[in-house]
Amino acid sequence: MTRHHLLLVALLAAGSLQAQTRIQGFTPANAVRQAEAEKLFDAGISAANQDAWMQFLASRPHHVGSPQAKVNADYMAERFRSWGYEVELARYDVLFPTPKTRVLELLGPTPYRALLEEPTLAEDRTSGQKAEQLPSYNAFSGEGDVTAELVFVNRGIPEDYEMLERMGISVKGRIVIAKYGGSWRGIKPKLAQENGAVGCLIYSDPEDDGYTNGDAYPKGPWRPEQAVQRGSVMDMPVAPGDPGTPGYASLPGARRIPWQQAKTIMKIPVLPISWGDALPLLQSLAGPVVPAAWRGALPITYHAGPSAAKVHLKLDFYWDVKPAYNVIATLKGSAFPDEWVIRGNHHDAWVNGAADPLSGMVALMEEARMVAEISKKGYAPKRTLKYCAWDAEEPALLGSTEWVEDHAEELRQKAVVYINTDGNSRGFISASGSHTLEPMYNEVISAVTDPQYGVSVRERRHARALVEADRNARARLMGNSYQKMSALGAGSDYSGFIQHLGIASVNLGYGGEGSGGEYHSIYDSYDHFTRFKDPGFAYGSLLAKTAGRMSLRIANAEVLPIDFGSFHETVAGYAAEVKAMADNLRQDVEVENRLIRDNIYVMARDLQIEWQLPKPRALVPFLDFSPLDNALASLKTAAQSFRIASAQAPALPAEKRASLNTLLLRIEQHLLTQQGLPRRPWYRHQVYAPGFYTGYGVKTLPGVREAIEQHNWQEALEQIRILAETLRSYTRQVEAAVAILSS
Amino acid sequence: MTRHHLLLVALLAAGSLQAQTRIQGFTPANAVRQAEAEKLFDAGISAANQDAWMQFLASRPHHVGSPQAKVNADYMAERFRSWGYEVELARYDVLFPTPKTRVLELLGPTPYRALLEEPTLAEDRTSGQKAEQLPSYNAFSGEGDVTAELVFVNRGIPEDYEMLERMGISVKGRIVIAKYGGSWRGIKPKLAQENGAVGCLIYSDPEDDGYTNGDAYPKGPWRPEQAVQRGSVMDMPVAPGDPGTPGYASLPGARRIPWQQAKTIMKIPVLPISWGDALPLLQSLAGPVVPAAWRGALPITYHAGPSAAKVHLKLDFYWDVKPAYNVIATLKGSAFPDEWVIRGNHHDAWVNGAADPLSGMVALMEEARMVAEISKKGYAPKRTLKYCAWDAEEPALLGSTEWVEDHAEELRQKAVVYINTDGNSRGFISASGSHTLEPMYNEVISAVTDPQYGVSVRERRHARALVEADRNARARLMGNSYQKMSALGAGSDYSGFIQHLGIASVNLGYGGEGSGGEYHSIYDSYDHFTRFKDPGFAYGSLLAKTAGRMSLRIANAEVLPIDFGSFHETVAGYAAEVKAMADNLRQDVEVENRLIRDNIYVMARDLQIEWQLPKPRALVPFLDFSPLDNALASLKTAAQSFRIASAQAPALPAEKRASLNTLLLRIEQHLLTQQGLPRRPWYRHQVYAPGFYTGYGVKTLPGVREAIEQHNWQEALEQIRILAETLRSYTRQVEAAVAILSS
Repeated sequence: MTRHHLLLVALLAAGSLQAQTRIQGFTPANAVRQAEAEKLFDAGISAANQDAWMQFLASRPHHVGSPQAKVNADYMAERFRSWGYEVELARYDVLFPTPKTRVLELLGPTPYRALLEEPTLAEDRTSGQKAEQLPSYNAFSGEGDVTAELVFVNRGIPEDYEMLERMGISVKGRIVIAKYGGSWRGIKPKLAQENGAVGCLIYSDPEDDGYTNGDAYPKGPWRPEQAVQRGSVMDMPVAPGDPGTPGYASLPGARRIPWQQAKTIMKIPVLPISWGDALPLLQSLAGPVVPAAWRGALPITYHAGPSAAKVHLKLDFYWDVKPAYNVIATLKGSAFPDEWVIRGNHHDAWVNGAADPLSGMVALMEEARMVAEISKKGYAPKRTLKYCAWDAEEPALLGSTEWVEDHAEELRQKAVVYINTDGNSRGFISASGSHTLEPMYNEVISAVTDPQYGVSVRERRHARALVEADRNARARLMGNSYQKMSALGAGSDYSGFIQHLGIASVNLGYGGEGSGGEYHSIYDSYDHFTRFKDPGFAYGSLLAKTAGRMSLRIANAEVLPIDFGSFHETVAGYAAEVKAMADNLRQDVEVENRLIRDNIYVMARDLQIEWQLPKPRALVPFLDFSPLDNALASLKTAAQSFRIASAQAPALPAEKRASLNTLLLRIEQHLLTQQGLPRRPWYRHQVYAPGFYTGYGVKTLPGVREAIEQHNWQEALEQIRILAETLRSYTRQVEAAVAILSS
Repeated sequence: MTRHHLLLVALLAAGSLQAQTRIQGFTPANAVRQAEAEKLFDAGISAANQDAWMQFLASRPHHVGSPQAKVNADYMAERFRSWGYEVELARYDVLFPTPKTRVLELLGPTPYRALLEEPTLAEDRTSGQKAEQLPSYNAFSGEGDVTAELVFVNRGIPEDYEMLERMGISVKGRIVIAKYGGSWRGIKPKLAQENGAVGCLIYSDPEDDGYTNGDAYPKGPWRPEQAVQRGSVMDMPVAPGDPGTPGYASLPGARRIPWQQAKTIMKIPVLPISWGDALPLLQSLAGPVVPAAWRGALPITYHAGPSAAKVHLKLDFYWDVKPAYNVIATLKGSAFPDEWVIRGNHHDAWVNGAADPLSGMVALMEEARMVAEISKKGYAPKRTLKYCAWDAEEPALLGSTEWVEDHAEELRQKAVVYINTDGNSRGFISASGSHTLEPMYNEVISAVTDPQYGVSVRERRHARALVEADRNARARLMGNSYQKMSALGAGSDYSGFIQHLGIASVNLGYGGEGSGGEYHSIYDSYDHFTRFKDPGFAYGSLLAKTAGRMSLRIANAEVLPIDFGSFHETVAGYAAEVKAMADNLRQDVEVENRLIRDNIYVMARDLQIEWQLPKPRALVPFLDFSPLDNALASLKTAAQSFRIASAQAPALPAEKRASLNTLLLRIEQHLLTQQGLPRRPWYRHQVYAPGFYTGYGVKTLPGVREAIEQHNWQEALEQIRILAETLRSYTRQVEAAVAILSS
């Protein structure tokens, strides 16, 4: 830090963080008491603890079923116990395929056999633990032994296949090679097999994840030539969890579907590779030069293919059922033991997993330790706190999903909120989640101080947004530091809670200044993490303070800090988006058909380049959105009434508060439908879901949005009706809450 | 061509090109006669002639002063003469520096000596003419022998130096390395020396000009590893032409300023290099990783520098005065011999120059041949046509500029228009020029048929624009195929005509489907051109038809085809742009100052990255644009009156037409001021000029625009006044034209 900066930090710190005496859901008196508790809590947060725990937990590879996974679970359980938690090791026996055979080779005149091996580095002390490391692979790939031509499919998402059709290139009977990025990885083989491909390779292009962004490891933090991103390719947008026990818990001895019959396992072999291994394959491609947007940063001309020479891909797996150990640590609530605030972070990794997941895990542990600590000093949380260390998140959210399926009924009764964390690094706070919690989130981040600048993390995040914004966005942001939360897709363990059970959820983390290319490789190590991602665990401590503050406030609030105004505004925004999408689609189809009909496409093309004319599409009808608009209007009215009526809620008599809280605790469940989303009944939430063709990426108002995207107008109308009914049912609950408040 | 395409082409051809019987400036009767002439003209255009001439002219390197340059000039003169032209070889003796010493080396632990050599290729028959080739260099570089650290400056334009300041990196006493692109090349050393650098390297990054875009030569058309873009770095935005004879003609024996005193020659050594030679230099850079927008496509992490090791650059030149031969071929007008339509294309090249300039040159020759041919068949042009083959364009528009300075007075009296061409390839028509000629240009391109599709080149260009447009732009373009012309900067020989003398000018060419990386390298050859850029010279023939039609129409029109409505609309658009620029600048400075004052920048930054806070800037005042607005309002009224009054002009009595034409011929001169633009009096046009800090890139309303860009408010107000006065003087001429029409 320069002297100039130090001075500024001092100046900034002086003006911030006056004692906060108003907290949503608290009486003024209890808000003061809560502030004392938070101060005590913050004061005890230790970076050294996190450092020591990470050193232990990341010392050896600890993937599902490995010896170290059990050692780590026991280690954490022991610590939770020592702090005063009631601890359970919840075991589920889950399908976890690991590689038996991996062969990838380019045949023909310049043959190449892929190395499929990440080198040991002297600068990375755990990178040489070869005997224990999982080789690079995609879990839930199909098996196969195929020899075929190669085609480059860019990101392998739907629009890429449209472009390939324009270029007159089919992937049928061929092996595709796709770049990582642009979608969740599992979408790539899913679309490849839907389009008739017989194999799928996924590689990390240096433009996205390598030297383009900065110096490669070990000189800098970025992905080196032979590093590979492991990861699951199970069809999680259909359902996460053990594919052998769909919809019910994988308790030891449970009835299991054979893996060959599981719907969410890929049918074709899928292998992730490094850019080092990808380069000779890409160089073998003939055919047209790819569109500009498809290019990566390798020093070649990218061609679409097919390749002149054939590629041979052979993959076999051990389809073992392995024990997964969730560590569940409970601190019973002093006043409302049957209202649960659940905190979770997974503990399994692809290899050593320092950043993913241990950076979040050790922050959670430190948070739990200090909660217990202040509890002993007279600040025992009123509601029950459950700290969960999930196993088997990496393969397909197995540990959390099986636990959720196991305890569904009790969770529906008792769970107030699920707060998730995962990898964490230096940088800026961000959150996704249920928008009823957005004002509470803004209060929390106003009360947490950034360690580098002495200002609140909300101010700092706002500063970043201002600096990055363009001229128009700056005008909008200036003077308004309210932070919108994003919506939740399916990237971590919150999925079972929010998507399947309707438990209000938040995912929290810091990032943006600890970027690197270690993700799901052997280089996600303690050495890498402490050099590049969060030296000194300053942001680990910050995460403990942020998530801890959120947990404690929800645990201690007189009235649960739920707001419907922010929720209505957000959903109304989504509704405007889907309407605009339908309008734009209508205009695009109209114009596109005209460009086809009037020969505009023909005249604009270079005749020397092969090009297939697109086919005219059916026009997009005007859809009746009025049921949705009307439902949103009612919700808006109810939300406004609630906001006014709830101002004095914390001071209500205890019985009224109790019935209000019971109602608020369960209200998110009214956003679910029993039948779930079309073609994927496990996902029941009508506002948030992972995209069927985007994966992690959230699709809000998924039923309506995806029907429009797929040009399925009948289903769109049906989904508008279902969504409107769902929102009406939800609004009736808000009205019931208003009734309690006004009675 | 596929069968599908052939059918479509036939269908398209059937419906287009009804005989055009209305032509701007013509009586209906003469329009019919003109159409006959054009039909005869088109019918005789030969691709085979162009092919044969290009084979000869490109057979050996023919840069300024080379034996082949004189051979080519004589060859062309002989052909023009044989077709019936009166031919003059106009010689000027011009300064043309060529390299004596070129040394570039990286010192330190991993030394590298740059090859500075383009390899001979078996696939390119003229690439081995080593003895005659000019080595790769930048003409009008300074001399020097410097050893210093290296800094990467991205494009080397003003905003890049602002970014370097943020990063805390100075170029003072160092050698800079810049990517080609983002500005005219001469801007890069100019800014480097202004910022204290002692040397400047410019390289072709494969992202802009190499394998990123397509296969490198000879497999594909793109720039290979060791190919170099030669080119001039004279400070042409100050003045083009011989720096030894500023403002007057370099006639043999003319008084000359010693080169060391010439203002437009760079003071520091400047060398263009290949990416092959650039790579080891870029790899030697330490310091921060560059911003994302600065990255190229080499397989490295781009750092800003400085380099750990030093770079040694040594350049010396032969500062010779060489003869430049313009070939001026005249066909005297049958009715108005003292009204000249001037057509030009340069004939000198950096090496063999098949595309640049011969593709345009041979089309001009074929055009001239057919003009003479139809002249003999009873369609002699009424006005004088001058076909000019300029020498010494490449170093700094020397041939055309000296000729313009030599004949300034006569040109002011007689020149109606200057129509320029240069390199040409397959693709789409485009034009820049005086906006009074825009409706005439649109008529011409409606009457020329694309050889691939049988539709007018205007329709085809419109089709391309539609396909490339985004949703909003498509809505605007649909159903309106009117083609705006761009404004002229300083990229070719029109500069002396329009910028210095105020002769209405147009630059014409086809392109967009013959892209490649041969520019200013030894690979700009007949072999490359006929494989990739215009096989069969179909678009050369099209250019001859387009430019020939334009020349013939202007030569034969009863009333010169000038329109003021299009001019007013265009200038009003520029005025709106500069006003918006001032407003945006005001808002940006305000916001930026606030981001500095409120510590937003500090909070948004990563403290681990070195970063200099920008300094607050003085606020942008509101400027009085009313003189400009009022002048434009008057122009609009006059332009409307002219459009109405001129409808019957072609049928006016001859004397009236004569005085109207004399007025119209000189009217663009009223857009000039005697004193010229601030700090560059050679440039006198108040509407169009090359940018002082962008080079080729045009700056419209340059006096006002650049004053605002430089935050020079006093000068901006002064320039608004001058511009308004200029437009008022111009408007008085339009009013005088209306008076003639109405008298």
